[in-house]
Amino acid sequence: MTAYLGRRYRLSASHRLFCPEWDELRNQQTFGKCANPHGHGHNYVVEVLVGGAVDATTGMVMDLAVLDRVVRAEVVEPFDHTNLNLQPDFASMVPTSENFAIAISHRLQRALPAGLLRQVRVEETANNSFTYTGDQPAPGAAKERVQ
Amino acid sequence: MTAYLGRRYRLSASHRLFCPEWDELRNQQTFGKCANPHGHGHNYVVEVLVGGAVDATTGMVMDLAVLDRVVRAEVVEPFDHTNLNLQPDFASMVPTSENFAIAISHRLQRALPAGLLRQVRVEETANNSFTYTGDQPAPGAAKERVQ
Amino acid sequence: MTAYLGRRYRLSASHRLFCPEWDELRNQQTFGKCANPHGHGHNYVVEVLVGGAVDATTGMVMDLAVLDRVVRAEVVEPFDHTNLNLQPDFASMVPTSENFAIAISHRLQRALPAGLLRQVRVEETANNSFTYTGDQPAPGAAKERVQ
Amino acid sequence: MTAYLGRRYRLSASHRLFCPEWDELRNQQTFGKCANPHGHGHNYVVEVLVGGAVDATTGMVMDLAVLDRVVRAEVVEPFDHTNLNLQPDFASMVPTSENFAIAISHRLQRALPAGLLRQVRVEETANNSFTYTGDQPAPGAAKERVQ
Amino acid sequence: MTAYLGRRYRLSASHRLFCPEWDELRNQQTFGKCANPHGHGHNYVVEVLVGGAVDATTGMVMDLAVLDRVVRAEVVEPFDHTNLNLQPDFASMVPTSENFAIAISHRLQRALPAGLLRQVRVEETANNSFTYTGDQPAPGAAKERVQ
Amino acid sequence: MTAYLGRRYRLSASHRLFCPEWDELRNQQTFGKCANPHGHGHNYVVEVLVGGAVDATTGMVMDLAVLDRVVRAEVVEPFDHTNLNLQPDFASMVPTSENFAIAISHRLQRALPAGLLRQVRVEETANNSFTYTGDQPAPGAAKERVQ
Repeated sequence: MTAYLGRRYRLSASHRLFCPEWDELRNQQTFGKCANPHGHGHNYVVEVLVGGAVDATTGMVMDLAVLDRVVRAEVVEPFDHTNLNLQPDFASMVPTSENFAIAISHRLQRALPAGLLRQVRVEETANNSFTYTGDQPAPGAAKERVQ
Repeated sequence: MTAYLGRRYRLSASHRLFCPEWDELRNQQTFGKCANPHGHGHNYVVEVLVGGAVDATTGMVMDLAVLDRVVRAEVVEPFDHTNLNLQPDFASMVPTSENFAIAISHRLQRALPAGLLRQVRVEETANNSFTYTGDQPAPGAAKERVQ
Repeated sequence: MTAYLGRRYRLSASHRLFCPEWDELRNQQTFGKCANPHGHGHNYVVEVLVGGAVDATTGMVMDLAVLDRVVRAEVVEPFDHTNLNLQPDFASMVPTSENFAIAISHRLQRALPAGLLRQVRVEETANNSFTYTGDQPAPGAAKERVQ
Repeated sequence: MTAYLGRRYRLSASHRLFCPEWDELRNQQTFGKCANPHGHGHNYVVEVLVGGAVDATTGMVMDLAVLDRVVRAEVVEPFDHTNLNLQPDFASMVPTSENFAIAISHRLQRALPAGLLRQVRVEETANNSFTYTGDQPAPGAAKERVQ
Repeated sequence: MTAYLGRRYRLSASHRLFCPEWDELRNQQTFGKCANPHGHGHNYVVEVLVGGAVDATTGMVMDLAVLDRVVRAEVVEPFDHTNLNLQPDFASMVPTSENFAIAISHRLQRALPAGLLRQVRVEETANNSFTYTGDQPAPGAAKERVQ
Repeated sequence: MTAYLGRRYRLSASHRLFCPEWDELRNQQTFGKCANPHGHGHNYVVEVLVGGAVDATTGMVMDLAVLDRVVRAEVVEPFDHTNLNLQPDFASMVPTSENFAIAISHRLQRALPAGLLRQVRVEETANNSFTYTGDQPAPGAAKERVQ
């Protein structure tokens, strides 16, 4: 009996999309107004998906208190009400939401009990979401079937 | 041409997370305030996902009236405005939302035309959702790729 | 590093579910009030899911300006504020939301850079959504595991 | 002890914004793509606000079953899955959402117990809503205070 | 410069609508399935609206930390994950959401700095909301203008 | 026949809550993590409420194209993807959302046809909203009735 639990966390942060090795013009052409010099911000929703066997006694995939403690310590506390560009995770990469989902995933991989994390989804706005499910190829996955 | 139809149903119920073989203290340690003695409740959203070939004449995966009739008879009527702990589905398991998704899935498997049901998702609150997609291993599925 | 970007677009249109080769009675029996003679309408949300490697320099799966230009030209402009039954895509099929998702998918397959499109999801109402991920079999996908 | 109850109902309909006494060009200039000849549609959310004393025994402003019966008979049944332009309410006025809110309000005024109806709000899309609170002047109301 | 701040809090609770002085039949006739003997539950959203002059230095109507502390102590802690029928507030009244909004309002009136509270709104489900703005007559208010 | 039209616009911006005449400690005590030195950000939803007589011919309170043009020019363009602290509107006041609603209201008062604007509402997060309805006293308004 494998089930999945998705839990949403919220944080607000600012960022600027900007490649330091490019000049201002090329940054504007690539990132548009997301490259404006003083940054802008979002209310991010981070949905963490864990999966595993449902424990026969507790009826749960994992202890929610543990999940909350880990996500708060590894994701909410370090990033909430900050400027993402200044965080060490983004010292050498642009803080796009693609990279934000990957950075969160790496942090949770290290901190959660092994084998539980399945997916990290970052909603940047009500219309844009970014999902990271890991690096290995995934033949047959629903998401890869439109040809 | 395979397509998927997700349809959401709503019901309100109360539950208490509590293992009868444990003492009160261990229940509080495991379930926190969800073990409070008189129960609490939720507005559950149940999203049923069915999938199959799109019928060339009707353009539909399945007859929505049939889906509604089955889900109302098997899920909404039996569980809406009840205490989940008192339902036969939970005679020997804790009514967590993981187990609720599994119980709903078992009921729909028996009642829907064969091969249509793909997934049951229970949203317990705006931030917590639980998904059950069946018991067999699922190599390559997107949800299992973060390592 | 593969990631997925989901982006939502909105359009309003009318449609009528009706098979011309059937008589009125059979249409009513099959489609219910969706077969009412003068049509009705919806606010459709179309979520396009693209996936691919995250570019090491830009941190993005694809250029959002390109995605917007393609989806607006191929989906929003042709369908927004129209009657779907009168569009060429539905000359020989019923404009159900299953078929709408498939038609949108075919349009985007031709217009987007190869290999990026993964899924098209059409939300017809707050409770009904339709997803198309392509035609080939998808063994092992999460969506197909409930038996 | 006066309290207010807001209850939301949903219906899907098509409409076309078009003044028959104007030529096509003037209609296009005024209504834009909303004047497209074959109509388009929306998922309307109709929120009915009733207010009154809270009954000391039942703890309710009004019997919800009565409210539902009235709104279904007067609003949902007549308008759901129809073309608004063809309804008698719009025989001599354009079916904008302003006029839709007013038409619904007039229907409910006649059918609800006297003195209960306070406001009708029509959400045409996620971003546009239209509210009608009655015809008499309303000095001091919050809504009229920005100068 | 008067402005209003609305802040939403969430709690889950169970309740049963039942008048002890009535027999079972009359309770069922009045409250329908809400009178089912073992109760049911909801995810309540409580929106507290405070209003006042915007402080020239801080730019705020009131200190949000104070508002949170008061609402958590007076509303979230006492009611979250409980059975409302067993709370002292409902010792002599039915725990409808009308009465819940009034009870919350009375608690906050006593605990918030004088003159700030303007309205309490309880969302019982996605479709039902209940608002209490105080006991005195309110001539001219928008909500009372439909006749 | 007076009706109200509410229309929602979205923009993303960063801000920092900080009074320059105070030292760092007092800022932290007053604004908490909102005073973090490098700012943070939000997806703001700005709902503009206009009200007036429904035009007998067009059935509209005002021309939506005009409203959009004004709000885009006066609000979305100047503030979207910026740092609010650096905008001239906030040269001498803290960019709280209370002050943001007031600043938007002042801009729209000058640019909209006279007498139409009724209210500006800024949603800073899913849980916090700020409303400004103008400067004059508003006796009897629903919002001011809880005592």
